[in-house]
Amino acid sequence: MTERLIRVVRPEINHPSLQDNTADTDRVVKALKKHLGVNSIDVDFSLIKELPYKLRDNSYKICACIFQTNDIVELIDVYPAEGTDIYGIAIDLGSSTIVMDLIRLNDLKNIDEVTFRNPQIEIGTDILTRIHYASKPEGLNKLQSMLIDEMNKYIQQLCDRHNISTDTIVGISVAGNTSMTHLFLGLTPQWICREPYIPVINKFERPLKAYQVGLKANKRAMLIVFPNVGSYFGGDLIAGILASGMARQNEEICMLVDVGTNAEVVLGNGDWLIACAGAAGPALEGGVANIGMMAGPGVIDRVKIDPETLEIEYHTIDDLPPVGICGSGLIDLVAQMFIAGMIDMRGKFVPERCGNRLVEKDGIMYFIVVPAEESGTGEDLTLSQPDIDSLIRSKAAMYTILTTIINTVNLSFNDIGKFYIAGTFGSYINPQSAITIGMIPDLPLDTYVALGNTSIKGASLIFKSKDYYEEMLKIRDMITYIELNVNQEFMQLFSAAKFIPHTDRSLFPSVKQYNEK
Amino acid sequence: MTERLIRVVRPEINHPSLQDNTADTDRVVKALKKHLGVNSIDVDFSLIKELPYKLRDNSYKICACIFQTNDIVELIDVYPAEGTDIYGIAIDLGSSTIVMDLIRLNDLKNIDEVTFRNPQIEIGTDILTRIHYASKPEGLNKLQSMLIDEMNKYIQQLCDRHNISTDTIVGISVAGNTSMTHLFLGLTPQWICREPYIPVINKFERPLKAYQVGLKANKRAMLIVFPNVGSYFGGDLIAGILASGMARQNEEICMLVDVGTNAEVVLGNGDWLIACAGAAGPALEGGVANIGMMAGPGVIDRVKIDPETLEIEYHTIDDLPPVGICGSGLIDLVAQMFIAGMIDMRGKFVPERCGNRLVEKDGIMYFIVVPAEESGTGEDLTLSQPDIDSLIRSKAAMYTILTTIINTVNLSFNDIGKFYIAGTFGSYINPQSAITIGMIPDLPLDTYVALGNTSIKGASLIFKSKDYYEEMLKIRDMITYIELNVNQEFMQLFSAAKFIPHTDRSLFPSVKQYNEK
Repeated sequence: MTERLIRVVRPEINHPSLQDNTADTDRVVKALKKHLGVNSIDVDFSLIKELPYKLRDNSYKICACIFQTNDIVELIDVYPAEGTDIYGIAIDLGSSTIVMDLIRLNDLKNIDEVTFRNPQIEIGTDILTRIHYASKPEGLNKLQSMLIDEMNKYIQQLCDRHNISTDTIVGISVAGNTSMTHLFLGLTPQWICREPYIPVINKFERPLKAYQVGLKANKRAMLIVFPNVGSYFGGDLIAGILASGMARQNEEICMLVDVGTNAEVVLGNGDWLIACAGAAGPALEGGVANIGMMAGPGVIDRVKIDPETLEIEYHTIDDLPPVGICGSGLIDLVAQMFIAGMIDMRGKFVPERCGNRLVEKDGIMYFIVVPAEESGTGEDLTLSQPDIDSLIRSKAAMYTILTTIINTVNLSFNDIGKFYIAGTFGSYINPQSAITIGMIPDLPLDTYVALGNTSIKGASLIFKSKDYYEEMLKIRDMITYIELNVNQEFMQLFSAAKFIPHTDRSLFPSVKQYNEK
Repeated sequence: MTERLIRVVRPEINHPSLQDNTADTDRVVKALKKHLGVNSIDVDFSLIKELPYKLRDNSYKICACIFQTNDIVELIDVYPAEGTDIYGIAIDLGSSTIVMDLIRLNDLKNIDEVTFRNPQIEIGTDILTRIHYASKPEGLNKLQSMLIDEMNKYIQQLCDRHNISTDTIVGISVAGNTSMTHLFLGLTPQWICREPYIPVINKFERPLKAYQVGLKANKRAMLIVFPNVGSYFGGDLIAGILASGMARQNEEICMLVDVGTNAEVVLGNGDWLIACAGAAGPALEGGVANIGMMAGPGVIDRVKIDPETLEIEYHTIDDLPPVGICGSGLIDLVAQMFIAGMIDMRGKFVPERCGNRLVEKDGIMYFIVVPAEESGTGEDLTLSQPDIDSLIRSKAAMYTILTTIINTVNLSFNDIGKFYIAGTFGSYINPQSAITIGMIPDLPLDTYVALGNTSIKGASLIFKSKDYYEEMLKIRDMITYIELNVNQEFMQLFSAAKFIPHTDRSLFPSVKQYNEK
């Protein structure tokens, strides 16, 4: 690993004398050029103004905080030679949730983390509402300042908690999707969502400064914004690829999937990367079933059904009485019901196996997952036939997207060495259940690696080495985004995938035993 | 001549489509990189924000205003393709007078010029008073804003006169001495004037932006500040060297002298440059004689004395009755008096030649240059013995400085191909008179070239070609500043030069004839 992106160095600076009376700034720049072996160093005008005082206050014995990439060297600040701790903040800029990590850059220690709601939710939970709002006069400014104010509140909180000055925050890295990145930077998002879907900027040739968006930090703190590939493939996914390490993989071919309402898929390694994104529907996140909810206390996240007794065992978060089921629990439940023969390969309830758990109401069949007397709500937690149908459509969409991208490069799933699942939701999925319902290919289980929140991981990684910064730029440049063409072939693949696990049973050998029942 | 430093180019920009849906900024950058054949282009964040609108307002048919040096390419703004005139402002930042040229960059036409008093004179006519004031709280801010406000007033005036928008001013170049440059930029000058004389900055690695000092212009207008060599050798002299062309001279050795209270001297050519500066005293500018004054209406600027009749012929500016004498007139007068035998080689009045023009008052001898009845003041215009003594000390200092610098490189004055005299004052000097009094070496008269205001010339030149910008940086880097060591040898040279023209008559063959009288 090479040097860090932002680090403190201690150049030898000669005390001025009549024999060596060059200017303060030139003196520091010369010493740094020699120390670092570089030809040019940028110094912001605000620092030029402060340097004479900072140098004399420390009798020219200083250390220098520098930002260095392959192309750019910038002096961020100078401190007393005995040293000052410097900090970075990594930000996962989610449209609903924002995560901020405080990292001490001297030893790369993760000091603290805060998670908070994106305050723009007040304007609209979905991004399209916000984009529409941003097109109105002052709308963009308002959305941006809501966000920046809230971020500053939490930056201040992090600093207060650890008794550090915001002036010691010298770098901020931000990974978000394309629209959120625009709203964060105050760039109009109005042409992102209409044909031909044009962002204002994908890639910054030079990092911005935190003050340019009004973030509380050192006045010269660097602001590293993860680049976008396009309107539908943003910096959050570049951060994901960076965090997965797939672009550092020289031999194995890797696949990275961010499972959500939108399924974003990347395939490749250090030599090539292709990506696509498509709507999978909210069902995979448990967002449609009437008992579906986000992971939280009392939410069922794991399910097991005894194929003999048909008894349902479930696990709830914090072991509280069940109040609902999250995406991973839902995938488990449907997989287990299939294995137990309670639903057939079309996903339809099998009445003789469901028994009295199956009830009808207004012509719709419901399966009682948890009876009222066991539940935390005092009511039955039920799964309806339409819920299952919806999940099957979503998983079919996901599988079709995966198939399409692998076909594009004339490979098969068996060529995949590592299959990374990104996203907080992804970390809860039981891969075997996802395979059982035919959502992901039937690969050896150790192929699957859940990565958790790859946005914050990628955003943090950037501080670890300048190689990661360069890798971020490289990923951005090498990635080929393919538009998912929802044509006849796609629809045929989709139809075939709308079974559990698939019409072509040979694709899922590990599930075949249940299929034949 | 290569490309201009700031110019308008017309890159081919593809209209976005589903097949080519890259972001607006990336699209423009890509087109410009191709058009210019460069690897990187900087785009200020403020322009990134505006680009989506500017591009769509012009259906992606735009021209681009770019700043380009060997190391930096920056997109300043975009305009409708049919073209917009762009302007530059060159500034001679004098401590008493400021000159501003408005230049149309499309055809490099000098559109207009304004000259105005440096408003900081209100705080102090001499620079030391201002430096002292700048060390007080808010003093520096006040000095800077006085200056910037006044400059903005004149920028606005220039724009109004020619009906152009300040938004079309895309570049500002400024040449001033080191202290004035500091006061202009809001950099503390307090360590310039005390040992070991350390400026805040000599050389900017990247140009600043006009908004950083608050100048009225396009919000991304480049601000090119001529670099300093040190506390006593500033950007005005770098501009002088640039304007003289001596650093483009490959064969002839050139000398450049800026004559004033401080004599600044540069010697060399395209291969080497050495410089020094020393106090010559205000006498050369006519600043000591009680009839001495700045050039202006009624001021005597040329004098001729008939060696036979001893009649004094003089020329006044605007042919008005004489009210005083300027530096060049004074040099003429003393040279002519010497030729006419009215003063001897020590500069003392020769009573038998001066006749009744010589009067005594309070033990001091006065020479009546213009009797009261001819003068514009109604009083005698007189030159005193101390006035002449003072002029002789000043000319001796000047000659000693010139001798010292030529000795440093083991050359003699005869090796000099061109002797440039910079400064408005310098353009009025009659070289033969300056030779006669022994102020400058006795070289063929066509060796001497008066350059006028080289600060404004150099500052304007920068816009003509990026080669001049690179030359400015090169001059800064190649120049060797030698401290004038006022040691015993210097004092011996100085003593020998305190005669008209010199104790060593062989140094001034063209003056020898008068000497022998």
